[in-house]
Amino acid sequence: MDLVNDVLHGSRLALTRLLTKIEDETIEGQEALDKLFSYSGKAHVIGVTGPTGSGKSTLVNCLVNELRDVKDREKPQKVAVIAVDPSSPFTGGALLGDRLRMRAISADPDIFIRSMASRGALGGLAKMTLAVALALDAAGYGIIIIETVGAGQSEVEIAKLAHTTIVVEAPGLGDDIQAAKSGILEIADILVVNKADQPGVDAAEGALKAMLWMGYSDTDISAEQEKGKYQWVPPLIRTVAINGEGVQKLADEVRRHMAALQESREWQSRTQQCMSAFVKQLLMRELQSRASLDENSKNYQQVMAKVYDKKLSPYQAVQELLSN
Amino acid sequence: MDLVNDVLHGSRLALTRLLTKIEDETIEGQEALDKLFSYSGKAHVIGVTGPTGSGKSTLVNCLVNELRDVKDREKPQKVAVIAVDPSSPFTGGALLGDRLRMRAISADPDIFIRSMASRGALGGLAKMTLAVALALDAAGYGIIIIETVGAGQSEVEIAKLAHTTIVVEAPGLGDDIQAAKSGILEIADILVVNKADQPGVDAAEGALKAMLWMGYSDTDISAEQEKGKYQWVPPLIRTVAINGEGVQKLADEVRRHMAALQESREWQSRTQQCMSAFVKQLLMRELQSRASLDENSKNYQQVMAKVYDKKLSPYQAVQELLSN
Repeated sequence: MDLVNDVLHGSRLALTRLLTKIEDETIEGQEALDKLFSYSGKAHVIGVTGPTGSGKSTLVNCLVNELRDVKDREKPQKVAVIAVDPSSPFTGGALLGDRLRMRAISADPDIFIRSMASRGALGGLAKMTLAVALALDAAGYGIIIIETVGAGQSEVEIAKLAHTTIVVEAPGLGDDIQAAKSGILEIADILVVNKADQPGVDAAEGALKAMLWMGYSDTDISAEQEKGKYQWVPPLIRTVAINGEGVQKLADEVRRHMAALQESREWQSRTQQCMSAFVKQLLMRELQSRASLDENSKNYQQVMAKVYDKKLSPYQAVQELLSN
Repeated sequence: MDLVNDVLHGSRLALTRLLTKIEDETIEGQEALDKLFSYSGKAHVIGVTGPTGSGKSTLVNCLVNELRDVKDREKPQKVAVIAVDPSSPFTGGALLGDRLRMRAISADPDIFIRSMASRGALGGLAKMTLAVALALDAAGYGIIIIETVGAGQSEVEIAKLAHTTIVVEAPGLGDDIQAAKSGILEIADILVVNKADQPGVDAAEGALKAMLWMGYSDTDISAEQEKGKYQWVPPLIRTVAINGEGVQKLADEVRRHMAALQESREWQSRTQQCMSAFVKQLLMRELQSRASLDENSKNYQQVMAKVYDKKLSPYQAVQELLSN
């Protein structure tokens, strides 16, 4: 398969074509992924999530530049961005200033931006995100940033497929912060209060800090010294993405988190967790498609007719459908 | 089963207990639903969705009062509210003023309010919403209002289980409106611009109207005259829920929509669609639980070990898991 070879040799055009085949769930895309799979497993996946209005796209943009900008003459990593948020500038729904910034980074041949915003993805992760990330990983992108809109469900989903999850908040977003809070601590590796030059920043940060201290006891924090064991207390960072303030600190924390994951076995464990989630997702889809195949069958329709006539309850219908 | 009898005879305490058993997915709750099922199928289900900050809870509150307040000495319907939005005042995350209003309606013995906000429901519908609605229907609540936070996915989900879907927007919410728009037309039966006394209302309404005209061609609108066939162009209503402005008009439109559904076969068809969605959901959960049972099996873990070792791709793993 030439496409696979071309992708492995760094062709951006081939990669773009392949990703489209993957997103369209063609057999060709699936077969290509089967072949690429053994080349994957090297990328560090960073999930960035937060509500609309938190400025996370601008932050991602800055973060890409910071992560490209390595010290010590190290070979800089190729970086890919997968934008799942439909209101993200990466996906076209942008202000002019944002678009100009994006254009600057998209001119870099070692940065690849893929928009996956689709109707089905509103408020969640596009279902092929994991497959796209795998392909980018195999194609040699050492850092993959997945940007999603911060609805509660997708926050939890993103944590399953990222090594490092960054949760972005901003002052003055109102109830959204309140609603999201309860789930945040369990998934955030790094907390960011963006737009830190705006009023209300102290209140927003204070609320997040209070939540942090509730979730992490003193024991957790002192145990951090223990060698070889993954221990991490999520740092809270203020940024003003629009002028780059705090973004270097954020990049440093990302690198520090990478190191903490790699020094312990946590990095492998998160990679496996992600694979496991992917297999489960594919399994569900396969079962789903097998189950909905039945939907057009005479048997399925007869059972549903009994439900409509109140002769079978929905639970009884399920038993009947699965007994055949 | 006494609980079922008590519910059918109007005991609120029995109903509350039953709903808890249903939400906890106990066998008892499931068996009770099996028995109640034949009494269901009369309620008109209204879905109300919209982003945080659109004031939809206050609007629901007013709407309940309006719908209770029937003219012509008709027997007023019992009304139930299912609140799935975790930031809704119905679920406790409220401002004082909201809570006082809620208290007024919860004192009415013919109004029943059920909060289903749970962590798993963030940004979506609590999974047992349909079952709870069925029980309330069987218990004699002629109107059931389901309030959800307007993430894209739950908007689409709610349309599957409501006869009438009301989409609430408000001026000044920013990108959220933009993001949600693309999916709105397909699901909204009634569009509301709430907080219509605030700046930006003309712009918000104008944007929604433009979308409306794109979705509905002249043919659709003139064909509306055709007899017996369901034709409906979603009206756009301005409200100021905080002082009740426009809510009577909204209630009138809800009644007009009910009538339009009932004059055609659309009401039955939507009820069946909802049943069908419920069965599918239960079916998926059953398949899911059967599939995840496998997860602890030796075979499943052996297959996953091959994935971690890059010997099997995720797609190949699924084929292997399902071939056993």
